[in-house]
Amino acid sequence: MSYFFEVLHTDGDARVGRLKTRHGIVNTPIFMPVGTRASVKALSSHDVYSIGAEIILSNTYHLYLRPGDKLIKELGGLHKFMNWHRPILTDSGGFQVFSLSALREITEEGVVFRSHIDGSKHLFTPENVIEIQKNLGSDIMMVLDECVPYGADYNYTKKSLELTTKWAHRAYISRDDTSKLLFGIVQGGFFRELRQESAKQITEIPFDGYAIGGLSVGEPKEIMFEMLKITTPLLPWEKPRYLMGVGKPIDIINAIELGVDMFDCVLPTRNARNGTLYTSLGKINIKKKEFKKDDSPLDPHCNCYTCKNFSKAYLRHLYTTKELLSYRLNTIHNLAFYLNLVKEARLAIKQKKFSAFKDKFLNIFGKE
Amino acid sequence: MSYFFEVLHTDGDARVGRLKTRHGIVNTPIFMPVGTRASVKALSSHDVYSIGAEIILSNTYHLYLRPGDKLIKELGGLHKFMNWHRPILTDSGGFQVFSLSALREITEEGVVFRSHIDGSKHLFTPENVIEIQKNLGSDIMMVLDECVPYGADYNYTKKSLELTTKWAHRAYISRDDTSKLLFGIVQGGFFRELRQESAKQITEIPFDGYAIGGLSVGEPKEIMFEMLKITTPLLPWEKPRYLMGVGKPIDIINAIELGVDMFDCVLPTRNARNGTLYTSLGKINIKKKEFKKDDSPLDPHCNCYTCKNFSKAYLRHLYTTKELLSYRLNTIHNLAFYLNLVKEARLAIKQKKFSAFKDKFLNIFGKE
Repeated sequence: MSYFFEVLHTDGDARVGRLKTRHGIVNTPIFMPVGTRASVKALSSHDVYSIGAEIILSNTYHLYLRPGDKLIKELGGLHKFMNWHRPILTDSGGFQVFSLSALREITEEGVVFRSHIDGSKHLFTPENVIEIQKNLGSDIMMVLDECVPYGADYNYTKKSLELTTKWAHRAYISRDDTSKLLFGIVQGGFFRELRQESAKQITEIPFDGYAIGGLSVGEPKEIMFEMLKITTPLLPWEKPRYLMGVGKPIDIINAIELGVDMFDCVLPTRNARNGTLYTSLGKINIKKKEFKKDDSPLDPHCNCYTCKNFSKAYLRHLYTTKELLSYRLNTIHNLAFYLNLVKEARLAIKQKKFSAFKDKFLNIFGKE
Repeated sequence: MSYFFEVLHTDGDARVGRLKTRHGIVNTPIFMPVGTRASVKALSSHDVYSIGAEIILSNTYHLYLRPGDKLIKELGGLHKFMNWHRPILTDSGGFQVFSLSALREITEEGVVFRSHIDGSKHLFTPENVIEIQKNLGSDIMMVLDECVPYGADYNYTKKSLELTTKWAHRAYISRDDTSKLLFGIVQGGFFRELRQESAKQITEIPFDGYAIGGLSVGEPKEIMFEMLKITTPLLPWEKPRYLMGVGKPIDIINAIELGVDMFDCVLPTRNARNGTLYTSLGKINIKKKEFKKDDSPLDPHCNCYTCKNFSKAYLRHLYTTKELLSYRLNTIHNLAFYLNLVKEARLAIKQKKFSAFKDKFLNIFGKE
């Protein structure tokens, strides 16, 4: 048992844990709403509290560019800036460099990239992304890694994972403040052998937790789970495990079953803005005509602000007229759904009923 | 004294009153936030409560087209639909027909217009706009009028005001449910004589209140106040007076001085979305560089959610990154400013210090 993480209950490989951070405790398995630019899109920090979020994720790449990590430090850190006083995990910016920015040049030193906003040139190194995350005042920092695209060949992937390992060592050494947790990231693309190699190399470094990166980047779902099944057992049991950027509710359930503790994804927030809403009876699109006269709440089993106060007919009206309130109400509900999902998963594990919980869930969301 | 309106205090022509409606009491002078399509843009009904709004305005034209007044009636009325349980005033749709829709043909019967959404053809009559407002469940209904553009000539304006008077009679007769208040509207363009004539004709009909329409449509401010000064004294002292679509904070103060009780305007909400914010120290634009490192609240004297929880630096960041939260936080503040303004005006009238209050305000906002 590590000082800051404790596995409290298990059911098969699934586990319930407790992660201690400077800004409080996180109960795992947990879903982390994404607050890209110091705001979970359409929500205030109090909205995020109200849905029961225990931790959010924020993006190093975006905050480094705007408003700048040094400015945020000067203003007292990200928690004060956005008035959110529960834990924050920040990514390393690596994923955004590889997915958003034009021109990027990877060298041993780090990665040179151009801002997607104004084209200005910047350098991320394993050391300076730790510095940036410290400036932000992150509770859980991530190391810089290279996220290899789906389809990259064996040789490229092998070289890349070796660079990611070197960077991980440098990140670990450059971290001097141990009050902020630091997680390593396993890469290795879509080759079983390379995933194993990366897991071995990364877990040799005594990080506070381990993430599985480079999945959910366009590969078929079976391949993602094949990689996940190989990787998860290689991660130390006594430390938190974080599957980055995943995913659909069903993916989260399946990954929890394999022993994953932490998740983040833009899906519930992005879908909310597109009118796609999760309910205990399945996924719906609020723009459909069938909801025009429906004065019942989105989900009769949901206790969120949206469900307690507004009807499907009103939500449909807000969506079809593009009222700004639509984005907020839909986002509150979808995040409440995700947070309720992990809460129910925790309860099911505690009661050793995870398998039944999963089956019940599959009946509703299995076809998604 | 009428049953539902009482003038409680006066200071010169300015008055403090109490307006009783089916959904509760409104303290006048009052500002009504505009909830065009069953939502004050970017806010939920609870946000609108939180800023102390006592009544909102909603638009008959917009709700008639989407989602439809009959649908709203079926769903239990506008209050239930948007979960707002304080008073609602609805306009007659006349102003939107004349400002938004293409093709409109005015006849004795009413006005034929095309929807700005899909070009479909519709007819508004004095009778059916009352019916629509009843379907919405409005607390204060407005009669159909023709809003004459600035620059219309004497003869056109004279004919128009006569039609508006005929329509007002028909609207009054068609109203059978006296639990919903009905206000007449004085027109007469920008001719002193025609304003007086319209005021005389409209006030002969025993409406529950009287509005001054057709102002703030592009005319110079002096001309607007010239018309207002002629019209206001011709309205019955014992009934509420409503200046439609006005305006800037300074205009509201000046109109209160002339004895106006009710106001609505999209300015605070629209300005909020453009980053223009009102503070007790003057108007600011939040996008300015000077606020980049400013960790103080927008307005140290404001008790709104935005000012109590976030800094100018955060608001600037949200605005420059176009975060959806920006619209909500800015709107909450600007409406809180307007509602605080009328609250302070009420207090000043009660204490017979309106003139001093106005002077203090002019020192800050006089140059706007």
